[in-house]
Amino acid sequence: MSHQAEKAGMKTSIETRVEQALERVQGLYRDLHCHPELPFQEHRTGAKVAEALEALGYEVTRGVGGTGVVALLRNGAGPTVMLRGDMDALPIEEQTGLDFASRETAETAEGKRVPVMHACGHDLHSSCLVGAGAVLAGLREQWRGTLMLVAQPAEEVFGGAQAMLDDGLYERFARPDIVLGQHNMPAREGTVGHIPGSAMAAATTLGVTIHGDGGHGSMPAQTVDPVVIAAHVVTRLQTIVAREVPPEETVVVTVGKLHAGTQGNIIPHSAELEINVRGFDNALHRQVLEAIERIIRAECQAGRSPREPEFRVLTETLALHNDEASVERVRRAHAAQFGEERLFAMPRLNGSEDFPYFGNAEAGGFGGEDIPCVYWFIGATPEARWQDTPGNGVAEKMRHLEMPHSPYYAPGQAATLKTGMATLASAALAWLG
Amino acid sequence: MSHQAEKAGMKTSIETRVEQALERVQGLYRDLHCHPELPFQEHRTGAKVAEALEALGYEVTRGVGGTGVVALLRNGAGPTVMLRGDMDALPIEEQTGLDFASRETAETAEGKRVPVMHACGHDLHSSCLVGAGAVLAGLREQWRGTLMLVAQPAEEVFGGAQAMLDDGLYERFARPDIVLGQHNMPAREGTVGHIPGSAMAAATTLGVTIHGDGGHGSMPAQTVDPVVIAAHVVTRLQTIVAREVPPEETVVVTVGKLHAGTQGNIIPHSAELEINVRGFDNALHRQVLEAIERIIRAECQAGRSPREPEFRVLTETLALHNDEASVERVRRAHAAQFGEERLFAMPRLNGSEDFPYFGNAEAGGFGGEDIPCVYWFIGATPEARWQDTPGNGVAEKMRHLEMPHSPYYAPGQAATLKTGMATLASAALAWLG
Amino acid sequence: MSHQAEKAGMKTSIETRVEQALERVQGLYRDLHCHPELPFQEHRTGAKVAEALEALGYEVTRGVGGTGVVALLRNGAGPTVMLRGDMDALPIEEQTGLDFASRETAETAEGKRVPVMHACGHDLHSSCLVGAGAVLAGLREQWRGTLMLVAQPAEEVFGGAQAMLDDGLYERFARPDIVLGQHNMPAREGTVGHIPGSAMAAATTLGVTIHGDGGHGSMPAQTVDPVVIAAHVVTRLQTIVAREVPPEETVVVTVGKLHAGTQGNIIPHSAELEINVRGFDNALHRQVLEAIERIIRAECQAGRSPREPEFRVLTETLALHNDEASVERVRRAHAAQFGEERLFAMPRLNGSEDFPYFGNAEAGGFGGEDIPCVYWFIGATPEARWQDTPGNGVAEKMRHLEMPHSPYYAPGQAATLKTGMATLASAALAWLG
Amino acid sequence: MSHQAEKAGMKTSIETRVEQALERVQGLYRDLHCHPELPFQEHRTGAKVAEALEALGYEVTRGVGGTGVVALLRNGAGPTVMLRGDMDALPIEEQTGLDFASRETAETAEGKRVPVMHACGHDLHSSCLVGAGAVLAGLREQWRGTLMLVAQPAEEVFGGAQAMLDDGLYERFARPDIVLGQHNMPAREGTVGHIPGSAMAAATTLGVTIHGDGGHGSMPAQTVDPVVIAAHVVTRLQTIVAREVPPEETVVVTVGKLHAGTQGNIIPHSAELEINVRGFDNALHRQVLEAIERIIRAECQAGRSPREPEFRVLTETLALHNDEASVERVRRAHAAQFGEERLFAMPRLNGSEDFPYFGNAEAGGFGGEDIPCVYWFIGATPEARWQDTPGNGVAEKMRHLEMPHSPYYAPGQAATLKTGMATLASAALAWLG
Repeated sequence: MSHQAEKAGMKTSIETRVEQALERVQGLYRDLHCHPELPFQEHRTGAKVAEALEALGYEVTRGVGGTGVVALLRNGAGPTVMLRGDMDALPIEEQTGLDFASRETAETAEGKRVPVMHACGHDLHSSCLVGAGAVLAGLREQWRGTLMLVAQPAEEVFGGAQAMLDDGLYERFARPDIVLGQHNMPAREGTVGHIPGSAMAAATTLGVTIHGDGGHGSMPAQTVDPVVIAAHVVTRLQTIVAREVPPEETVVVTVGKLHAGTQGNIIPHSAELEINVRGFDNALHRQVLEAIERIIRAECQAGRSPREPEFRVLTETLALHNDEASVERVRRAHAAQFGEERLFAMPRLNGSEDFPYFGNAEAGGFGGEDIPCVYWFIGATPEARWQDTPGNGVAEKMRHLEMPHSPYYAPGQAATLKTGMATLASAALAWLG
Repeated sequence: MSHQAEKAGMKTSIETRVEQALERVQGLYRDLHCHPELPFQEHRTGAKVAEALEALGYEVTRGVGGTGVVALLRNGAGPTVMLRGDMDALPIEEQTGLDFASRETAETAEGKRVPVMHACGHDLHSSCLVGAGAVLAGLREQWRGTLMLVAQPAEEVFGGAQAMLDDGLYERFARPDIVLGQHNMPAREGTVGHIPGSAMAAATTLGVTIHGDGGHGSMPAQTVDPVVIAAHVVTRLQTIVAREVPPEETVVVTVGKLHAGTQGNIIPHSAELEINVRGFDNALHRQVLEAIERIIRAECQAGRSPREPEFRVLTETLALHNDEASVERVRRAHAAQFGEERLFAMPRLNGSEDFPYFGNAEAGGFGGEDIPCVYWFIGATPEARWQDTPGNGVAEKMRHLEMPHSPYYAPGQAATLKTGMATLASAALAWLG
Repeated sequence: MSHQAEKAGMKTSIETRVEQALERVQGLYRDLHCHPELPFQEHRTGAKVAEALEALGYEVTRGVGGTGVVALLRNGAGPTVMLRGDMDALPIEEQTGLDFASRETAETAEGKRVPVMHACGHDLHSSCLVGAGAVLAGLREQWRGTLMLVAQPAEEVFGGAQAMLDDGLYERFARPDIVLGQHNMPAREGTVGHIPGSAMAAATTLGVTIHGDGGHGSMPAQTVDPVVIAAHVVTRLQTIVAREVPPEETVVVTVGKLHAGTQGNIIPHSAELEINVRGFDNALHRQVLEAIERIIRAECQAGRSPREPEFRVLTETLALHNDEASVERVRRAHAAQFGEERLFAMPRLNGSEDFPYFGNAEAGGFGGEDIPCVYWFIGATPEARWQDTPGNGVAEKMRHLEMPHSPYYAPGQAATLKTGMATLASAALAWLG
Repeated sequence: MSHQAEKAGMKTSIETRVEQALERVQGLYRDLHCHPELPFQEHRTGAKVAEALEALGYEVTRGVGGTGVVALLRNGAGPTVMLRGDMDALPIEEQTGLDFASRETAETAEGKRVPVMHACGHDLHSSCLVGAGAVLAGLREQWRGTLMLVAQPAEEVFGGAQAMLDDGLYERFARPDIVLGQHNMPAREGTVGHIPGSAMAAATTLGVTIHGDGGHGSMPAQTVDPVVIAAHVVTRLQTIVAREVPPEETVVVTVGKLHAGTQGNIIPHSAELEINVRGFDNALHRQVLEAIERIIRAECQAGRSPREPEFRVLTETLALHNDEASVERVRRAHAAQFGEERLFAMPRLNGSEDFPYFGNAEAGGFGGEDIPCVYWFIGATPEARWQDTPGNGVAEKMRHLEMPHSPYYAPGQAATLKTGMATLASAALAWLG
């Protein structure tokens, strides 16, 4: 059989298997959507995913990195391909009106009861992971190698990927040659968007405490005024983007929170800042974080602060860099599967993911990638809604559509589930087939 | 009778009348101390003071400026002398252990129930006012003119003096030629401290809202960042004291409070500041306030703030300037009454009072004095306690003694009450006698 | 004749005509190189260019915009194509060791005598313009339309293009449908680099005077300190790039010069700044300039400056935006002429040109383009030198090669002259042919 | 003889001796005035002073601390009193029109030829020192102790006092119990002004170099921008006076000079500042200097400066603190000599002197005084000129009169010379008599 014919055959095989799996995957999706769980609380979700994959013959391990699930299908010599889906939901009260809408609540780590909703479509991701698992298990005669399905907890708090790695994901199971993942988005259902290179932002939120030495507002010389230090810190931080970051690089440093003092005539003891940093280059991101620390320490010295400032990483994730060669390999597989007309060039998003940690296993920190990663986007807006949306192209229409994290966001139609299974399966086969 | 003999006779007359009034004044003091009232709630206190002065033959009006009391004794042609005592207490839980300690609570303007205590000795001031009223009524044969006793509400919030003036104090009753007042302090009981010229600070606390236009921390160009504007405001405000205030002047500008934002990755809509300004020159104080407004408005323009900043005066009072000639006249009267050895030179205090408004009736704002004022201090520390206190002189010993606004502050011994009556009476007679 | 055959014929025709013109063009080049002239002093250069084009049958006008030359060849109905070459040299002492190296000096506008050198290769540009004029005149049977050759003065000071437009270039001669230009660079000789869209930076240098009110250093309150205002201006300007420019845009604001005062104990009357702004989007560039003015005016108000600050544009040029469709048309013409292997994708340069003014005739200021422009780059590094240079590709090798404005830069080999004639001629024929 | 009679006798004795000395002193004054010398060049002046004092029987040493002169009169057991006069002139072209006006020029340390003038009346001080030496030598029967006359070089550059101390003034000659000095001023001739305590300012001018790492204005990330660091230094320095100096203290920190860069598009390598600091408390002055260094070092760290900043003391002198007890002793001696009506209370001046170094011999730096000093002022405005001058009192009239350092300032009338001799002699006798 010619290469061309082979490709056409594989396309048809995947389509057939996807159709076969759809009903069960749709059932799983509705069940997960109805029972969302907060980050690191995905006990029920993990169990459902594990059961489904065990039933398909996968070698399944639960509780990896908390509630994560790892499912292996060792199928002879060949590369190891990791497919990743995330499982956690958000503390949002669902307003979609779906008949399987969530009415769940849960207790947060701080002991607060909140409503829970799959407002970011991670239920879709987990279901498609299981669906792709079914497709690829069904097609095991047609490929060689090791398939590693990873259902990850706690993506929303940028913790689950690292937790699984810390729990020995690559040592206990297999070290992948390629890591593949996807996310739903408000684009026409059935379409797939790719972006080579820099794709999503690194993001760190620092909490900083600046120490002064308070006292009465009328006697500043007997105090160290942390409000003045904090003000100089904020003005000084502007120089990072203005002078230290190469002008062609996209970096943002935002002091979103600055709290000090209780009333005008009392000089407070300290000031609290929260600083958010974003950028698309991990090495530069680390430099920016170092610059922030350098500046704040120096300003505290300038202001004769009696104690060193304190720095706390409140949330953090790496920039996502899609390996250029690998993303082209995926794109070609998807072109073969869906036709070029269903592919689009994804613009770079300012959002963030903890997916890149899977590519960064040995580099650590913001050191760079050592396993190639590819992350793509699947459209989840029903055809009719898409036609009615003003604007041309993804970027313009997106402004008019419900976005992830909205209480009205509902991405999980059958067409999207089918696309999400086929994208994972066909991309995996680009290495295994 | 010689002038000298006359003076000696007056000294003795005052002493005799003070002794006669003591028991009743002490009773009033204990009653007021046991039943303290918050600013503008001095209904019971005002009634007690009014009753006592009516009984002495004064022409009494209640409810002036809220709960204030005005008592007139018109006694022929001659100058008008105003004696002022304040009546309000503080939201502090008394810890003095006195047998007549307060157990009162009250509801604040914000609807919060708080304990109440005469921790600043305004009960002493009101009692001495009544006592001096008794002394001077008893001596009416020996003087000519008009005596105006003013029991003022709400000194602690810098509101009562202006409220009485706004209610027509000088139009409805009499415009004084001299305004006299006093305050207790931790100095040896029986002593009196005078300070000519600049005596207490003007103080203004401004609340300022700086408007930005919030948004996501990753998209600063679509926002106006009020945190950055606020930081530039704080650094810029430092130039007022450093560059605009003559270096020999004592002025403080403190940003005691700066609150903006809720978390690192959200640029907030506004920033809130509280700025406290203090100084000893009313005209310069007004200039400083204008400079603050000028700087904040300009920084908001520099930062393309979408709306003008908002300024609210949270508290404010004038600087107290003791008229030099009048304070010398009072000092001489007190020297004749008590002997030079019981007088001391009072150092300038960083504290503030709303007493100066009585001298500023027509000038308005920070424009200057138009009626001469004299304000002195009476020692309230029992002799034995004073001897035991380390340090030499008032300034050093003060550091070791309980200060007003402490829950342990208890100034009202008989010796102090007697001094406080005699100071007012003898000072009034320096004009009326 | 087929379209393909026609193209191949044209390629050959151009090559032939280029070879025929080479000797004369090379002679002109050596002459111009040996006699460089400063901006707006290109009298001899303009005359040489004019004579050569007149000899070719062009309708030539001299002295347009000072020393500029316009040469028209009206050749029937059809589009108007403008080819631009610049003529001015730099105040640099030549160190190339060429046998036709410059030994010229000239007097600057400020009356200073300086050495002069064609260190930026504008002699090459003028010579190629004449050469392309010869080629296209020779081929006039093969095209229809109007050819307008423009030899521009004073590119180095960003003045010549606008001077020619102000002198009625488009009104007196012809309004082009397309404006074409080129620049030499340190890339392999014979190659041509194209860059669609944003290609070179807008650049403005502002001179700013901030007014204070000087006095003795010990009496700041009697002065307005311009040093403090200037310092706040500099810190405040950092917020433009940090907060007002979208993070994905490349903009730089540099205060390269700040001079105030003569000695420590005298507060000066004013401060002088020079601010350089660069960016690739003309509309955004204008916004940045407005932001600078807004900030400086506001800081002067904050600092109670007695007079408005003064702003002077010292140098300024627009960003160069290569019209995407037109650059593709040129690229295809060049591919046909030279083969794809001699083309390269030019990276975006931080340098600036005043060429874009020709595309901006009616828009004015930084308003945008109204006539499409294409500007490309021709390699000028001899083959052997190129092979010896370390690095892969243009960007890496460029770091090791002499750059324009170096006293050692010598781009004008025969191979480069031939390429520079053929690029202009073939690009022009993409519209005229 | 009664104490009162003794005093009256001494007054008369001094007056007589002053009259006797006047002609020679006036001659010396005119000679010195006509031949002024720059700091550390007072060779002729020193010789003239030395000769005159040798002729009076003093034990004279020349060349102390460069050109200084020390003259001792050991007259039995008793205290040692030092009288100081300074000798140097200024690089000013005299415009007084006096018949003995200077026409001298001299070469500065930098090799520049400048006109020279006694525009600060140091000729008067030296002459009065010699005159007082004559008076006290003549009266030697009436006192016991050691008289040390010190003619000091280089007061104008704040160097001569320390130079003499460094040359062993107190070790080689005598350590004084009291140091006395005086300065002429625009007040009514014949009057003497005293000021207890803080009298003249400490003053330091620092030169500071801030190191950056320059480069092209378009590539800030490859540079360290010293302009931005300098701007943050200036804004930060404002917090010293605003927050670190007690508000009741008089301190000024002025950045009078800030130079960086040559043109807008080049980021310079460094920035140069000159910072002038003034204050009346030596210990606080030292703290302020330390704060400046702390802030600049920290800001250089914040701005990642590649090298530590450099600090140079350009000029410096201590604050003058007149010992309270000693100034009262002098004042009483002057009252006895001249009558109370010729004394006035001198207001504090913002000017500076290096006289205080003589009181600071062992303390070093800004450590405080260890030998009591008294420095007073003598009026030098002729009676008629004084009457014609508008204003009341010294402070008001001073604004209308020529001040020291003016080319028109001419203080040396006979009445002033007589006063200046008598002030020194009578003050010395307050310790020796």
